[in-house]
Amino acid sequence: MKQSMEQDAPIGVFDSGLGGLTVMREIMRQLPEEHLLYFGDTARVPYGSKSKRTVCRYSRQIVRFLQSRHVKAIVIACNTASALAFDEIRDEIDIPIIGVVEPGAMMAADTTKTNNIGVIGTESTVKSGIYDKFLHRINPDITVVSKACPLFVPLVEEGLWEDRVTEDIAGRYLHELKEYEIDALVLGCTHYPLLRRIIGREMGEQVKLVNPAYETAKSLKVLLTEHDLLHPSGIDDKGPTYDYYVSDGVEKFISFAGDVLSCHVGKAEVVNIESY
Amino acid sequence: MKQSMEQDAPIGVFDSGLGGLTVMREIMRQLPEEHLLYFGDTARVPYGSKSKRTVCRYSRQIVRFLQSRHVKAIVIACNTASALAFDEIRDEIDIPIIGVVEPGAMMAADTTKTNNIGVIGTESTVKSGIYDKFLHRINPDITVVSKACPLFVPLVEEGLWEDRVTEDIAGRYLHELKEYEIDALVLGCTHYPLLRRIIGREMGEQVKLVNPAYETAKSLKVLLTEHDLLHPSGIDDKGPTYDYYVSDGVEKFISFAGDVLSCHVGKAEVVNIESY
Repeated sequence: MKQSMEQDAPIGVFDSGLGGLTVMREIMRQLPEEHLLYFGDTARVPYGSKSKRTVCRYSRQIVRFLQSRHVKAIVIACNTASALAFDEIRDEIDIPIIGVVEPGAMMAADTTKTNNIGVIGTESTVKSGIYDKFLHRINPDITVVSKACPLFVPLVEEGLWEDRVTEDIAGRYLHELKEYEIDALVLGCTHYPLLRRIIGREMGEQVKLVNPAYETAKSLKVLLTEHDLLHPSGIDDKGPTYDYYVSDGVEKFISFAGDVLSCHVGKAEVVNIESY
Repeated sequence: MKQSMEQDAPIGVFDSGLGGLTVMREIMRQLPEEHLLYFGDTARVPYGSKSKRTVCRYSRQIVRFLQSRHVKAIVIACNTASALAFDEIRDEIDIPIIGVVEPGAMMAADTTKTNNIGVIGTESTVKSGIYDKFLHRINPDITVVSKACPLFVPLVEEGLWEDRVTEDIAGRYLHELKEYEIDALVLGCTHYPLLRRIIGREMGEQVKLVNPAYETAKSLKVLLTEHDLLHPSGIDDKGPTYDYYVSDGVEKFISFAGDVLSCHVGKAEVVNIESY
């Protein structure tokens, strides 16, 4: 049995910016006893158009920061970083780590009946072909159709979650996906669940939208259990702590985080992430 | 009289990414003898939503890189960096440096007849109030109306220079500017000249669009002359060299640069800018 000090340590959750809060939200729901430490790389957002080399360097700096805060496990709550940096980082650290891509792929494979799956994400995620790889590993008969949607992130960050412009752009991006008979569409970027209504209307009811956040939180629970790192329930009267760190723009972060998490986020601290 | 070696050194031009190429283009036109070295911080783009502290840190790293390449002068071809970092950097280096904001303000003040000037730019540029400051210094009677247009940069980078979505967004951003009787509108972000047609149609013929790039190149010529650093014309048979450096994404840069400069950009080199 592990020391309770280790079980009591926080889980580090990181993202290129604000989108990972949709994953944070799901972990809060499914693992309500856990302390969480969120880092959003708001100074260097977005990752979605950056190269593997750059995303790996940035992710390593963040992992070093999280380890300096003694996290017991790490969640890469960003599809691009999961796609480009997960394998490298997993081999370099000795605490459990999980990305959003593998759980998302598992959920999509469970959802589809036609074996035709759509994936939307950032330029770098789609270019990496990572969802195809995981989906084909699960079931070689699955056909994957991917499409990069570069404007979705700025549209979400501008607050246009329900807007005719976002509808117009969604129509163009998703048009060609509709020609294939997909019945499951992976929202392969953590910003996209915030556009779920528009994407859902565009794709039609027969297409199930797969949000990897749900399955990631579920897989995280399994992983913590395997490592005997799950926070024991009911022993901590004070409840979990949620700490927020960003590399820039505290005010914008706090306001956006409040909207996504539907709760008051009191403060966030700025970290000079390049020094890690 | 200075050594010709110093006059023969390149001018360093930098931007947060690709937009500064519109300034580069203007310098090529007005100073066709000069060697130019362009740096685009494509790994950390955009600057427009970042804080002063972060933009200053990034700009300092770039200036150190340019100095390591022995540039004879520096052009900050980015409105956000000019707005947030120009004063700090000018005091720290001993070579001539110029931003785009002061020349842009001078040109706008020359252009207006009604003394009502509009300024559009990124969130950080508009928040800094820098155009207001320069315009009021030139003429205290000038009224300035500013508006941040955060989606313009991603729309330009997505290639939607002439598109109904860009028109729709432009209509919303520029709508309130039209209520004031402005007769000059500063394109206070180096991406915006690429949307000049849509912005021009929206504002109407009575509003002159002011592109700071033109005046920046003109002021640069004056500055170099003052410091006896102008490249002597006609002494170099080989013509000027143009070198391109970026912090990420060489291919995208080369393709975009070709479009903006209307010439073939053969290669660009990746720089690990955080190490400077």
